This record gives sequence, C-alpha cells and structure tokens, in this order.
Amino acid sequence: MEISNRIRGFQASPIRRLSPYARAAKQRGVKVYHLNIGQPDIKTPKEAIDAIHSYPHDIVAYGDSDGDIELRKAIVEYYKGIGVELSPEDVLITTGGSEALLFSFMTLCDPGDELIVPEPYYTNVHSFARMANVSIVSVTSVLESNFALPSLSMIEEKITSRTRAILLNSPNNPTGHIYTPKELETILKMCVKHDIFLIVDEVYREFCYDGKTFTSILKYSEYADRVICVDSFSKRFSMCGARVGALISKNRNVIRETLKLSQARLCPPAVEQYAALAALSAPASYIADVKREYENRRNYIVKALNSIPGVKCSVPDGAFYLIAQLPVENAEEFAIFMLKDFSYNGETVMVAPAEGFYESKDLGRDQVRIAYVLKPEDLEKACICLREGLKAFNAR
Amino acid sequence: MEISNRIRGFQASPIRRLSPYARAAKQRGVKVYHLNIGQPDIKTPKEAIDAIHSYPHDIVAYGDSDGDIELRKAIVEYYKGIGVELSPEDVLITTGGSEALLFSFMTLCDPGDELIVPEPYYTNVHSFARMANVSIVSVTSVLESNFALPSLSMIEEKITSRTRAILLNSPNNPTGHIYTPKELETILKMCVKHDIFLIVDEVYREFCYDGKTFTSILKYSEYADRVICVDSFSKRFSMCGARVGALISKNRNVIRETLKLSQARLCPPAVEQYAALAALSAPASYIADVKREYENRRNYIVKALNSIPGVKCSVPDGAFYLIAQLPVENAEEFAIFMLKDFSYNGETVMVAPAEGFYESKDLGRDQVRIAYVLKPEDLEKACICLREGLKAFNAR
Repeated sequence: MEISNRIRGFQASPIRRLSPYARAAKQRGVKVYHLNIGQPDIKTPKEAIDAIHSYPHDIVAYGDSDGDIELRKAIVEYYKGIGVELSPEDVLITTGGSEALLFSFMTLCDPGDELIVPEPYYTNVHSFARMANVSIVSVTSVLESNFALPSLSMIEEKITSRTRAILLNSPNNPTGHIYTPKELETILKMCVKHDIFLIVDEVYREFCYDGKTFTSILKYSEYADRVICVDSFSKRFSMCGARVGALISKNRNVIRETLKLSQARLCPPAVEQYAALAALSAPASYIADVKREYENRRNYIVKALNSIPGVKCSVPDGAFYLIAQLPVENAEEFAIFMLKDFSYNGETVMVAPAEGFYESKDLGRDQVRIAYVLKPEDLEKACICLREGLKAFNAR
Repeated sequence: MEISNRIRGFQASPIRRLSPYARAAKQRGVKVYHLNIGQPDIKTPKEAIDAIHSYPHDIVAYGDSDGDIELRKAIVEYYKGIGVELSPEDVLITTGGSEALLFSFMTLCDPGDELIVPEPYYTNVHSFARMANVSIVSVTSVLESNFALPSLSMIEEKITSRTRAILLNSPNNPTGHIYTPKELETILKMCVKHDIFLIVDEVYREFCYDGKTFTSILKYSEYADRVICVDSFSKRFSMCGARVGALISKNRNVIRETLKLSQARLCPPAVEQYAALAALSAPASYIADVKREYENRRNYIVKALNSIPGVKCSVPDGAFYLIAQLPVENAEEFAIFMLKDFSYNGETVMVAPAEGFYESKDLGRDQVRIAYVLKPEDLEKACICLREGLKAFNAR
C-alpha cells in the first residue's frame, strides 16, 4: 500500500518545505523575516477589499467554468491598456497562475513528454510537471551573466521528438531577468521551426526597473496560435491568497480543450473573482507606487547583500526575487540553521534554498532565492540577521 | 502542434457541456430551469456571508498550504460532533472537494494504475482520472435495484495488480444511494485483502432522508491507514462557489506526500476559508432546515417524474440527485433539443445526459441526471416542461 512514484520521488517546494522550522522558531518567540516567499507586505487595493466587504450575493454559487464574464471582459480591457487585443474567448480564469501552469502542462503534454525550461526556474513548475508526469529539460543560465537566456544552440540541442513546449517566465522568478523582444522573437521562430508551443508566465510584468519596458508574448500576433500566456492577480495587486489567475491563448483549440479541465473543477473562487474585478478598477497610481517601492527595495537589498563578505548577487531587472550565492557549501543546511539554531536580537530570517530551482543535479547548492517583499526597515534587519547568521554558521 | 492525448480523447463534463445552448436559450428570452447542476437555491449561512463582509485583513495574503489552522481545528470539532476523532494534522484543506479527489488520485496512482468505481458515478471523476492518467474500472449498479452496491464478487473480479484504490461516493451523486455500514465493512475487508486504499467522497453526508442515518468511513478506526475521506463545504452550506473542501486521512504518509501537491499550488482561497470557518458556527437548525427542504423536494420530484408517461426513476435515499430513465433513445439529443428547439410558456429545463456518468459504453444513453436543487414551485414548472418536451421531442 504505497504512494505513487509520481510523488514519492520529489521533494516538497523549497519555498514552503522549511515552514515547520519557521513555526517552531516563532513558538520560541523568535521573529522571522520571510524572504522565502513572494508574499508582499503591500496592501491589496482598497477597491478589492471594499468589493469583498460588499459582496452582493446571499448564495456563494458556482460560477462559469471559464470564469466570470465580467472579469474576463475587464481583463480584455486591461490588456488593451498594454497594447494587446484580446476577446473574452481567449481568456480562461484559473485558480491562481498555479492552475494555469498545471492546466497548460496537461493540455499540451502526455506522460513522458518534455518541457524545456531555462534554470533556475520557478520551483513549483517542477511539482506541476510531476503532477502531469511531464519531464522538465533544463538549460542553465548563470549568475555571472545575470541569468540571461542561454544560447539558442544550447536550447535547440535539447529539443527532441517528445518536446511539446518551451516555458519562460518573464520577468523571471527567481532571477529577475526580463527577456528582450529579440530573445522572444528568436525563441518564437525556434518554436515554429520545431512545431512546438511557447508558454510564457508573465505574472510579474508590471515590475520592471531602471526604466526597462516589458513586451508581452501576446503582442506577437503572427505566432499567436502557438502561445499560451499565464497571468495572475496575486502579485500585481498583492492578493496572493485570492487564487485568481488566467490562462490566455488565441489558439481556440487550446482554450476549448483546456476548458474541459476547468469544467472538471467547476469554477474558480467566486468571492475573489469579484474582488479581482474590483482590483482592476484601482487607479494606475496603485501599480506605479508599488513598482517604485519594489525598485527601492531592490536597490537596497542588492547593495546590502553584496556588502556581506562572501555573498554575491546579480541585479534583477524585474519581479521581486534574486538569486544570491552564499559563502556556504549547503544553503539548505544554512537555511535550517537560521531557523533552528540561530537568532540575533531575537530575530532571524527565512530564505529558500535554491537547489530546488534547478533541474540539473548539484547546481544552486550554495545559492538561495530571496524575495525582497518586505519594507526597507525589515529588509535591513533581515540582512543584518543574514550577515550575523553566516558568521555563526561558518564558525560552528 | 497538437493537444495531448490525455485531453483529446475525452468529452467535457455532461454537467457543463451543454451550457452554451443554455446561454443561447436565455438570450432568446427563454427561462431555463437548471436541473443539470448541483447548485442549490438555498442561502449560504448568514454567518458565512457576514464573515465575508467583515473580512478583517487589508492584504489577501497567502495562507498555509495545508489550510488555515483555525479552519482545520473547527473541522476537527465538527467531526467530533459526528462521532469521529481527528487531529488537525489529519486534515488538508483543499480548493473544493474537486481538488481533494484529484490530489487523492495523484497521490495514490501512477499513470496506468486503476481505480475501481461503481457506475454511474460523479462524472467529473472521469476528468480527474484523465488529468492523472489513471484508468477508471467500473462496476455497474442498476436503477432496478435502486443502484445498490454491485455484488462483492463483481467488484473483486475487477481487481488487478494495477488497482490502487476503490472510490465510493456516499450519499451518492448521481444515484442518491447511501452505502450501509455492512457494505462499507465488507469493502474495507476487501481493501485489506488486496492491500489497496478506499477513498470515500462524503460531501453529501448531511442529506439522508426517511430517517436514514449515515456512517462516515472515518469511524472504522482499525482501517484508518487505508482510508481517504473527501469533504466539502459546497453542498453542506450551499457555498459551491467558495471552493473550500478537505482531504482527510489518518495515514500520515498520505497527508505528508499530498502536502507536496498542496505546497505546489500554494494555498486554498483565503477569504473563502474565512467564510467556511464562520459557516461552521451556523446553528444546527441551518442544516436541519436544508435537509427537510431537500427531502420535500425529493418527495415531490420522484412523484412528478414517475407520473410522466415512460419516465422511470429510483427513490434516492440521500444527496440531491437522481437518475431518471426517459422514453427517448438518446438523452443527450433530448437535452439539447430542450435548450435549442423547445420552450413551453417561455420556459424550458436543462438536464445532464447520464451517459457521461458511466464508464461502460452505451450505458445510460436513455438516462439523465437530475439535481433537485430548486424550490418546489420551480420543480413543478420544470417537470411540466419535461413532460411537454418529451411529447414534442418524440413527435418530431
């Protein structure tokens, strides 16, 4: 009476895996700064909270499987604002961007099929691939070149008869890299050449720094039939717990077939779709303010981390994560040490070991992913904890 | 550039598949009575709606992957009330009972593994099995014997080396059958003999009629290590759109491994977990009233349906569905006819063709599933539409 091989073989998400240690630390009265997870301390738009408070129905009833039509129409309007023409039929509302990723994999791939993903990559992609029995084939990007896209020949040589799609995440979690229009166009041409799909997770598209601009994959209309875009309200509107995202494609076959999966699970959460609709009515200044705040945090933390002896990190162009290399052999041991055996002035910090963001064995063992989602005062204290923690860890 | 075989080969849920016809009918100004879906017209408890209206956070943040601890504790209390001793560690909150079913399949089965399910069965089980590449092996129950469990020898002869679990749903959707303690105990012994799991979907447990009582599978403590119970707030508290359910097991390995899946999708919806917690504080009279209402509806509809010439239906003991045999060759054609080509006094009715509730080819072609979730006045009008519609359909 055993558990499936599908699950037995893989480790839980490194973002969440160490949570029991964090709970224990809190029970001991230690304050834990969470740099392990992309949970911003930014307020959800007032419009969304007000919508929750005035939810107008007395039955929280099933909605349409493809999502509430008002929300789908509002998403079409939002995309018009970033120069993308959509119709509501191109949009399936999903239970978070997570479900959009899982559904994409299931719609495009059979067990044993392959997805090509630049690593390090969003670690939960690994879990979704396991759930769908799909193999992740990675191409490695490196800190030294700021995690730019690996060379096309490196990607192309990974394509086999089982390759069904390439998956990009831009701006990237965990590296902060933003794929350039040139990179995207070359990848799209490669997809045509090998007759495969391109999935692009764009949930961080609002967060591009240093004046950099973002080009949605949906703008390349001539390639539209082989593109799936994953979107989410979680980060844009700091409503991660709402679990409202979207799978967007101009390929009607993809939408029609994926809808079968949507219909199986009936509908996305009703109250939170209502809140998401309201969030889209928040003034443009909401996003602008949040972006400025993250850019400040990025500027602060990159400097603070690089000033810790032995720590190296790249300068992320977007999103709110970075990969930091630490002067330790095993970053997971260090992360556990920080929660289990360490505190500084009654405080400590939780980071996500980066090994789980790589498919290749032994990469990322001395790296952690840091989500700079806390306000500068807290980031400062967290960095002090890191510096003191590294000293203590290496002095054991 | 094709869609996966996993998806291509199966039809969308018969509960939802005909929705475009229903939308078109409404656009023509025809009123549609929805007997196709288990969306009750019963109000969600005031406690839950009030909780939504007073959601106390200004960030809709990620929660724990296993669900909010307060909600898990309240679920433990609820189970104490039905005589089952649990601890919060036995409970994973899921995004609806749907996700609990999908996760169960993924945790227990690898692609090609088999689940034994009495048919007709909850049709979305078929979709979840496809998503997990698991094969449904059905044993047929029949209207003539009120859809009682098929003989044990019939079940046992379906067990192969790939069988990982038996799946029951009690009270049953779509048949209304309630498995007796004797049936459950015999099945449990068979599971021990063949070293397989038993998954029981008990989301309708409050709805047992004619004074019949319900025995949760969780009461059989000596078999606890091979049992998974699926639960949901959707029907009990008429909050289907909230997408809050639970996967419950005393098998710590099952919980620990399934948690990896929960961690991948981060957390269940936050606002609606808060509402679910409040729903559990609704007075006992809420459930008692709802149950009485459904029992009345059942009494009404069974009589009304059996009075239509050529229509036969069994008397469901629980839940709020029944399988009705119609005097037609193809119930799907009839269901489409009712939405596309028929109305009576400006009204029509949507039913779910039952073929998709069977795994065996050609079974259920002359049957529909009816969800008696409307108030008696509406059920009456819906039954008149059915009677007139059958006349019109067979007179074409």
